[in-house]
Amino acid sequence: MGGNKRLKDQLRFIVELDKLKGVLRRTLLMDGSRNENDAEHSWHLALMALVLCDYARETVDILRVLKMVLLHDIVEIDAGDTFCYDTEGEHHRVEREEKAAERIFGLLPPEQAHAFRELWREFESRQTAAAKFAAALDRLHPLLHNYYTQGHAWQKYGVTSSQVLERNKKIKDGAPHLWAYAQRLIEDAVKKKYLTS
Amino acid sequence: MGGNKRLKDQLRFIVELDKLKGVLRRTLLMDGSRNENDAEHSWHLALMALVLCDYARETVDILRVLKMVLLHDIVEIDAGDTFCYDTEGEHHRVEREEKAAERIFGLLPPEQAHAFRELWREFESRQTAAAKFAAALDRLHPLLHNYYTQGHAWQKYGVTSSQVLERNKKIKDGAPHLWAYAQRLIEDAVKKKYLTS
Repeated sequence: MGGNKRLKDQLRFIVELDKLKGVLRRTLLMDGSRNENDAEHSWHLALMALVLCDYARETVDILRVLKMVLLHDIVEIDAGDTFCYDTEGEHHRVEREEKAAERIFGLLPPEQAHAFRELWREFESRQTAAAKFAAALDRLHPLLHNYYTQGHAWQKYGVTSSQVLERNKKIKDGAPHLWAYAQRLIEDAVKKKYLTS
Repeated sequence: MGGNKRLKDQLRFIVELDKLKGVLRRTLLMDGSRNENDAEHSWHLALMALVLCDYARETVDILRVLKMVLLHDIVEIDAGDTFCYDTEGEHHRVEREEKAAERIFGLLPPEQAHAFRELWREFESRQTAAAKFAAALDRLHPLLHNYYTQGHAWQKYGVTSSQVLERNKKIKDGAPHLWAYAQRLIEDAVKKKYLTS
């Protein structure tokens, strides 16, 4: 189809991204109709970032947060979704995802490939204020889905409230006020028997 | 569950957004497995904006473009998806969507509701450089899906190449280089019989 190489490479990456719509998460949509996929999850996080940015512990560069949440799961096209309470899968996750990042971001022109990989690594390392806030949203989001589906994934995979509290307490590092909210949500889920204590 | 009203309103909006994952478009995923939904489409556009921003006709504020593409379809939670070649549906679209914008963005705290409505109207009006670029991506995206599904929606709804050219020529206003690419894609689709001339 002609055209320059740069645009061709960029479009190859864009076409590749379509596969993220087929990577299913453990959480159901809030109406319970089916599993959520990574592309929908990433979109939802981006909107959460826009709406909730005032709750970040430190002032964050919202553009950087958006970039991170939009691309944080792309590696799962190759590496698949690792359920956050799966300690066995977690063990090999880093290696699988690093390889995926090389291949998929590597479809882009070199300087964009580099920038995307760096943003992804920043998200994974959770050291900067933007990464901590993005990671807080990434944890809060499935809590909402589990709460609004009466604890579907918690019950299906036998997750207890102490595991949920342990897993999600890092929300505090990125957004203390949202962690206070998340704790009330978890308490309420136990009270409603969505989650065993 | 306690907590302040501002956060409660914001979370009610965030929970409402989940419904966009159930609003189906006419285009299939590129693997042909099922129809795409609006949330996935919006995520894909946001990534396209990040990757392709150098092709904008004028320099654009990328944060503004991202906000627009992320929220541009939210009104379809109430108004539904209007197929872009459906001139009858198009007639009532504006009214339906204005009403939807009032209700859905109206769930947010007033200043955020106002900001979101303004961004949505800016996108719809296609007057600013950011809105023209966002709209160009919103047209290029289904072209890619149709091309990679051998013209599925074009054939299903009897759309011809002159309609596709007419509908999409405004890509030029936002991104001339991407319009040149889109024209080659359409020509190639005719040659491959994905699209009738």
